[in-house]
Amino acid sequence: MSKAIKGFSKLTKEEKIDWVVSNYFSDQETGKAVLKQYWNKDEKLQQVHDEFIENTLTNYYLPFGVAPNFLINDVIYTIPMAIEESSVVAAAAKAASFWMARGGFKTEVISTKKIGHVHFVYYGDYDTLLNFFNKIKDKFYRDTESITANMRKREGGITDIMLINKNYEEPNYYQIKANFETADSMGANFINTCLEQFAETLKREIEASDVFTEEEKQIQIIMCILSNYTPECLVRAEVNCSVDQLATENMTGEEFAQKFQRAIHVATIEPYRATTHNKGIMNGIDAVVIATGNDFRAVEAAAHTYAARSGQYRSLTQCEIKDGQFRFWLDIPMALGTVGGLTTLHPMVKFAYELLGNPGAKDLMMIIAASGLAQNFGALKALTTTGIQQGHMKMHLLNVLNNLGATDKEKDFFKIYFKDKVPRHSDIVNKFNEMRAAVTN
Amino acid sequence: MSKAIKGFSKLTKEEKIDWVVSNYFSDQETGKAVLKQYWNKDEKLQQVHDEFIENTLTNYYLPFGVAPNFLINDVIYTIPMAIEESSVVAAAAKAASFWMARGGFKTEVISTKKIGHVHFVYYGDYDTLLNFFNKIKDKFYRDTESITANMRKREGGITDIMLINKNYEEPNYYQIKANFETADSMGANFINTCLEQFAETLKREIEASDVFTEEEKQIQIIMCILSNYTPECLVRAEVNCSVDQLATENMTGEEFAQKFQRAIHVATIEPYRATTHNKGIMNGIDAVVIATGNDFRAVEAAAHTYAARSGQYRSLTQCEIKDGQFRFWLDIPMALGTVGGLTTLHPMVKFAYELLGNPGAKDLMMIIAASGLAQNFGALKALTTTGIQQGHMKMHLLNVLNNLGATDKEKDFFKIYFKDKVPRHSDIVNKFNEMRAAVTN
Repeated sequence: MSKAIKGFSKLTKEEKIDWVVSNYFSDQETGKAVLKQYWNKDEKLQQVHDEFIENTLTNYYLPFGVAPNFLINDVIYTIPMAIEESSVVAAAAKAASFWMARGGFKTEVISTKKIGHVHFVYYGDYDTLLNFFNKIKDKFYRDTESITANMRKREGGITDIMLINKNYEEPNYYQIKANFETADSMGANFINTCLEQFAETLKREIEASDVFTEEEKQIQIIMCILSNYTPECLVRAEVNCSVDQLATENMTGEEFAQKFQRAIHVATIEPYRATTHNKGIMNGIDAVVIATGNDFRAVEAAAHTYAARSGQYRSLTQCEIKDGQFRFWLDIPMALGTVGGLTTLHPMVKFAYELLGNPGAKDLMMIIAASGLAQNFGALKALTTTGIQQGHMKMHLLNVLNNLGATDKEKDFFKIYFKDKVPRHSDIVNKFNEMRAAVTN
Repeated sequence: MSKAIKGFSKLTKEEKIDWVVSNYFSDQETGKAVLKQYWNKDEKLQQVHDEFIENTLTNYYLPFGVAPNFLINDVIYTIPMAIEESSVVAAAAKAASFWMARGGFKTEVISTKKIGHVHFVYYGDYDTLLNFFNKIKDKFYRDTESITANMRKREGGITDIMLINKNYEEPNYYQIKANFETADSMGANFINTCLEQFAETLKREIEASDVFTEEEKQIQIIMCILSNYTPECLVRAEVNCSVDQLATENMTGEEFAQKFQRAIHVATIEPYRATTHNKGIMNGIDAVVIATGNDFRAVEAAAHTYAARSGQYRSLTQCEIKDGQFRFWLDIPMALGTVGGLTTLHPMVKFAYELLGNPGAKDLMMIIAASGLAQNFGALKALTTTGIQQGHMKMHLLNVLNNLGATDKEKDFFKIYFKDKVPRHSDIVNKFNEMRAAVTN
């Protein structure tokens, strides 16, 4: 077991790299060179990036692009996106231009409530616990005063603390459920710190009280943790226009609107389609979430749980055609921060904020929701008209050509060659080899 | 509306940057300098990264780290992770070491079926359509022979084509549902190209047949698209040991196992907890998905839809204590590719593959599932013993100190100072200011 190692995290970066390449790489020098070619020449800047996580060896490049022409609540944004998928930025920019000519995106934050729980076990009478809980409730607030002081200055803090009886699902299982407002921070550390204090307060107060038997006093804290499911931290993005403004080269506005609505309906009733439909929305969402230094796993988890809230997994977007008007909208939960975390540490995140006019958390929720709605519109428009492959494969053409080592001149040729056809991988490779062979012969 | 622009994508990278900073930045030179400091000095390499997407301005750094000591099916892996969250790599490495001493991870791929649909509308008799469909079924295979040729050489291809009647949910709505095996590729382009051909074949054959009335012949293709929901492209990762091997400093193995099982149970019955629980699993999954050039939105969407398949959103991991044995496992759908897409284009992705011994898609599914299980184990162990904040805030300490501009010497001091306490943000800042003031005075 030579590949096992103790104390790896305590090695220097150079030592870590030496260990990795000597254990796993046949060509060790090339392995090292690949890692080092991605180091930034500014050592101090590199150190900042190295210290974001443990055992950093180098930087993984995600392309950082922008999608201009996003008219959102009458302001024109150029939206930053960090994403590897070739079609996302192009689709966002195209949908943004389309809607800029039709009044743009209207967005609103519906609510910003965040939630956390102390999950615990109590072997006793519920009414006794409830009476006691209500009597000591103010102590939860008082014991967290030093933790919540800064947040209260920013009009955030704990907005409610409840005892929840989960006995009907699991004997002896209870929760302290608390609601929070966290202003411009995502609030995970704040919420978790409050919850851990609630658990301490609960244990201390029960221990000191005389309404519980000795057995009842033996509560067990299972865990204290915020919930990434935030159905009431919710934003809506919407577009609308008259149906005839949707006409395409080959379709009337009415035909397009009907087909578009049908595509939404399929994603509402068919989970196999809903998953892919919402995945496309998340292409547009995550790209901005990452560029703005937020946690995309949290945003993903909340969005998909929300999509399943009816008991069946469904589309996050909806569509309505009424009195000649087309309306298309997205409701999505999103817990974001524009302060704390990476937001002040990562220079590209700071750049993204300046590009967006230094938004607060609510502004950012609205911008990101618009990006998700734009992406879904682009995907559905392509799917219901030309099909997805034509646009997608064209974006992919450059990647395939790069892989073949094509020159800039050859790339230009291929862009024209595939102008009116779908560039399948095998077609590109065959044509490329044919061209090169012709030159050689 | 000066911030609106036409033809942005056709500008050169320099022109794009000029337009962006002149429209959105007060200090234009600094804005440009931030972007350019992240360009790679190797122009050719930079061009490869620029061309992954449209409108690329620069590179967004995600830290690329490694978690050693993953014993999976008797092989020791060092797992590459690209992730911004401070605690993920550390938690993975810790859980990996813990399980290496207890037999490691056992993983298996349960199935690799992928699915796609032609969604369409047909105004006619179902039996007529079904009889006709069965009669022309072989034409779907024949018409896609050139598309499937390469895949068939690699033992993949189309494994079934079915007509699905969705009338009971929506009048006149039908699907061609097809199953695919895509070998070591993710297969999205392959599947979508096949599906678009199925739609062409269906339209052509119906048009040419004499069993339909003119009205019945007017089918409408809504869309052709693979499903990102792949419940039968499924992998399991498992750990097990005797209960007494789980003893900690303050708990017997039995106590730990019981508490751990309770935490899993809470995540099974309470969606607010399940979302956060699964989000933690995805921390470990996505980090490897990104490092290996796969599409994390697809993996996220499949995982969460799968978590909601019972009609309630639940934990993806399960736990069992039986006959003194502790078993903990994760079942998760995962459609991955180790060929195609970014896998051969992104030098760091190639590095990640070499580090993992150039796995096929099935091997990669198993490695990534183990990473997800490790992450969940680490999170639950922290939550049910010390609480989440202690470990989490320590990892965050360095970030806060960097933000304050701390020197290496100061950082060392703070690591020791917070050895036994939770470093809250305000405590760090206060102590730091106190120290600096002492030096100045």
